[in-house]
Amino acid sequence: MDVPYDILVLATGGRPNIPRIPGIRQRGVYTLHNIEDANAIKQQLSDKNARDVYIIGGGLIGIETAQALMEAGARITILEKRSHILLKLLDREFSRKLENELNRKGIKIFTAVNIKRIERADNQLVIVTEGKRYYSDLIILSTGVKPDSSLAKKAKLDIWKAGGILVDKHLQTSDQSIYAAGDCAESVNLITKKHEYWPLGSISTKMGRIAADNICGRESEFLGNISTAMFKVFDTNVARTGITTETAKKNGFDIDSITIPGLDKAHYSTDARYIILRIIADRQTKRILGAQGFGSGDVIARISLLACAITDKLTLDDVFKLDLGYSPSFNNVIDIVQTACVALNNKMDGLFKTITVEELEKEREGLNIIDLSPQAENSRRSIPRSINIPLENIRSERIPFERDSKIVLYSKTSSRAYEAYRFLESKKYSDLRVLEGGYIYWEK
Amino acid sequence: MDVPYDILVLATGGRPNIPRIPGIRQRGVYTLHNIEDANAIKQQLSDKNARDVYIIGGGLIGIETAQALMEAGARITILEKRSHILLKLLDREFSRKLENELNRKGIKIFTAVNIKRIERADNQLVIVTEGKRYYSDLIILSTGVKPDSSLAKKAKLDIWKAGGILVDKHLQTSDQSIYAAGDCAESVNLITKKHEYWPLGSISTKMGRIAADNICGRESEFLGNISTAMFKVFDTNVARTGITTETAKKNGFDIDSITIPGLDKAHYSTDARYIILRIIADRQTKRILGAQGFGSGDVIARISLLACAITDKLTLDDVFKLDLGYSPSFNNVIDIVQTACVALNNKMDGLFKTITVEELEKEREGLNIIDLSPQAENSRRSIPRSINIPLENIRSERIPFERDSKIVLYSKTSSRAYEAYRFLESKKYSDLRVLEGGYIYWEK
Repeated sequence: MDVPYDILVLATGGRPNIPRIPGIRQRGVYTLHNIEDANAIKQQLSDKNARDVYIIGGGLIGIETAQALMEAGARITILEKRSHILLKLLDREFSRKLENELNRKGIKIFTAVNIKRIERADNQLVIVTEGKRYYSDLIILSTGVKPDSSLAKKAKLDIWKAGGILVDKHLQTSDQSIYAAGDCAESVNLITKKHEYWPLGSISTKMGRIAADNICGRESEFLGNISTAMFKVFDTNVARTGITTETAKKNGFDIDSITIPGLDKAHYSTDARYIILRIIADRQTKRILGAQGFGSGDVIARISLLACAITDKLTLDDVFKLDLGYSPSFNNVIDIVQTACVALNNKMDGLFKTITVEELEKEREGLNIIDLSPQAENSRRSIPRSINIPLENIRSERIPFERDSKIVLYSKTSSRAYEAYRFLESKKYSDLRVLEGGYIYWEK
Repeated sequence: MDVPYDILVLATGGRPNIPRIPGIRQRGVYTLHNIEDANAIKQQLSDKNARDVYIIGGGLIGIETAQALMEAGARITILEKRSHILLKLLDREFSRKLENELNRKGIKIFTAVNIKRIERADNQLVIVTEGKRYYSDLIILSTGVKPDSSLAKKAKLDIWKAGGILVDKHLQTSDQSIYAAGDCAESVNLITKKHEYWPLGSISTKMGRIAADNICGRESEFLGNISTAMFKVFDTNVARTGITTETAKKNGFDIDSITIPGLDKAHYSTDARYIILRIIADRQTKRILGAQGFGSGDVIARISLLACAITDKLTLDDVFKLDLGYSPSFNNVIDIVQTACVALNNKMDGLFKTITVEELEKEREGLNIIDLSPQAENSRRSIPRSINIPLENIRSERIPFERDSKIVLYSKTSSRAYEAYRFLESKKYSDLRVLEGGYIYWEK
C-alpha cells in the first residue's frame, strides 16, 4: 500500500536484541518487551510452578525483572556476559557493590558467562556454558533492545552502525521530509559527541516532542543525551548520569574520580539515610563528566542536579558554589553533592591521595591501615588487620608505622581520615592514602 | 584588650531583630535564637501550663516555631504585619495556600496586624492592636535577624544599609586585612545584583569556606545568593529559589509565571504525591528567574535543579531539554519541572491565556466556567457554578456559552483544559482562559 505524505515521522521503536545462541528460540525462553510477553511469563510461572528462573543479561531490565519475579516467588539467577552487571551504566566498583546487594537479597549472579547453547532436558531448559550447565524452568532474555529500522532501510535512509536511524539536531533523517524519533533513532552523547543508541523513555519522549515542534514550525533542537538513568535494586536507589570511567578513558579524557558516602539529610533527622556518590571530572578543566550514586537515601535529587551541571559544563567548584538552600529535613548545610565536588577538587589539587576499595583488597598485605573512628565505633566494626587510633588521639598517640611506609587512613565515611592525613603529612609521613568511601562503602 | 593580627575574620553572626513596640521587652516575651531561648520557652510552657502562645512574625522561623509548639500542646496564633505570611520567600498566592494549610492544622493566623503595645493583665500578656486585644500566655518574637556588626563599626568598616558588613567577592571588607563571613555580612543577589541580607545557614557556611580558602592562598569567589530555602509546613514540603514576582517587578523585570500541579512520580507508583510548582521567567529572554513549590511530594529535588538552572541562566526551553532520566519510582517520563517549563514557554508564546485562582475568585460573577474532567470526577468535586463537559465530549456537546463570552477552562490539573482550549479556539471562541493549577490548586 502506498500512502502519500508531505512529512513522515518514523517512530518504529526498538525490538529485543536476541543473541545468536543455538536453542535460544524455543518454548520456555522469553523476552520481556511488551504486555503480551509479561502475560506469557506470568502464565508460565503459575502453570508450571516454575521455580528456577534464569535471566540472561544483567542490564537495567534484567535487574528489574529479577526483582519482580523474585517477589513473585521464583528463585532467580542472572547470567551476565561481561565481568560485571550494569557495566554500560556504572563503574565496575559500583556494579560489584550492587551485585553484593542482589546476592544478599538471594539473587544469584554469574558473570563472564559465555553461553554456548540452550538445550532441553526433561521438563527443564539447560543453559550450557563452558564447563557448566544451568538447569532452568524458565529463561528470560534481557539482552537489550535494538532499533527497528527496517522501514527506514526500505526508504534508503542513512543508518548508523548500531542500526539506528541517523538524525540531525532537528531529528530529520537523511531525507529531509522524514523525521525519526524514539527507540528507532540514535542520538549524540553531549560529552563524547559520539552517536549512541540509548533506548530510554526519557530520551524518546523528548525526541517525539521536539520532532513535533519542528514539524509544526516551532524550530527546536535536540541537544543530545547524557544517558541519565535511575532504578531500584530492592530498597537501594541507584542513579547515574554522564559518562563512566571506562567510557571516559576510551574517549581519551584525562579524568579523576572520588567516592563519597554521606547522609542525605541532617544526621538528627529521623529519616536520614546514607548514600554513596561517585563523581568523575576532567583533570584539566575540572569539568564534571559523570556521576553515579546509590543508597537507601535520596540519590535521585543529587544525580538530577548533576545532570543539569554536566549539561551546562559546570566545574566541581561551580557546583560547590550553587546556592542549594538548607533544611535539616531535606539535606545538609553543605549538601553531599557539594561535599563530593569539594573533595574531588581537593584531591585533584594534590591535597590528599586516596586508595580505592578495590586497590585496598588487592594490596592488603603491604598496607598499614589505621581506623580513625572513636574507639566505641571501631570495636563494633572495622576493616580486618586495621589498628584503631581515634582522630582525637592522633596528635598524642604513637603511630606504630614507619614514616615512609604505606599507610591507609579510614573512618566511617573517611572524613576523619582527611583530617588525620593533613596532620600526619605535616609530621613527614610520606606515603599516606585515604580510603575512598570509608567503612560505609567498604562494607557494602 | 588589643590583639595583634595579620588577617582577621569577622563572623559575629546575627541577633534577633526586636521591633520597637512598647512593652515588648518584658517577662513572657521570648525570642528564639539559641539553646537558652529554647530551654526558657520549654520551661515556661511546662511551668505555667501556657496554653495560648502568640507568635509575632510569620516568616520561616515563625512558621517552624508554630509547628513545634503546637506539637508540644499549645494553642498557636501567628500575628503577621504584612498582608500575608512568608512574603519575603513566596508569591502572595502561595502564601495564602500555606496559610490555609496552617489553618486546617489548627494554627490561627492574623495578617496586616499593627501591634501598638504589649500589656500585662492578671497572669496574661495582652497584645494590643488597632481595634483588637489578643490575650496570651506566652509570646515569641520571630521578627527576623539583623547582622551583628558592632565590632565592624568600631573597626570603621563599610556597613551596608541593612546593617550588614559590606564584602567583595573574596569576602574582604573595606579593610583588606579583614574578612567577614556569615550572618554578620551581606551578599549580592545573583539576579538583581543588589546587596541583600539573607541570614541562612547554607549561605553563611559557604562564605566561611570561601573566606578560609582565600586566606590560605586558594583564590575563591563567592558568587552571590539566590536565596534558595526549604522548609516544612506539617506534611507539606515547601521550597523556593530565585526571586519572587514582587521582587521581579520591583526590579523592573518583565516577567510571566505559571502554576502547575502534577504528580512527583508515575501515577501508578504507590507513593506518588501531588506537588505544585510555580515558575517565574523573563518575558524577553525566557530565562528562569524564580521558582516555588509546595506539596506532599518531592518539591525539593525540583527546586534544587532549578537553583542550578537559575544560576546558569538557563531558559525554559533549556530545562525542558535536560536529560533527567526516568523511572516510574522517581519521576515521570517528562518530569513535572520540565512540564512546567514547557507550559510557561507555551503561555509566553501566546498558545493559551490563563486566569489565576485569585483572579477567578475576584471575577467569578462574569465568568463561564467549564470543568473538562470525566463526569465521575466532576460529580465528586468541582468549582461552584461550573458546568461539566468532559474533554471526550468537547467536540460533540453543545457549548452553552457565546463565542465572545469569557470562558474559564479547568480540570483536575488543567491539562485537559489546555486541550479543550486549543479546540475551542479553532471554533472561534475568542475569550478563553485556562485556570492555572486546576482544581488541585484551587482547593488548597
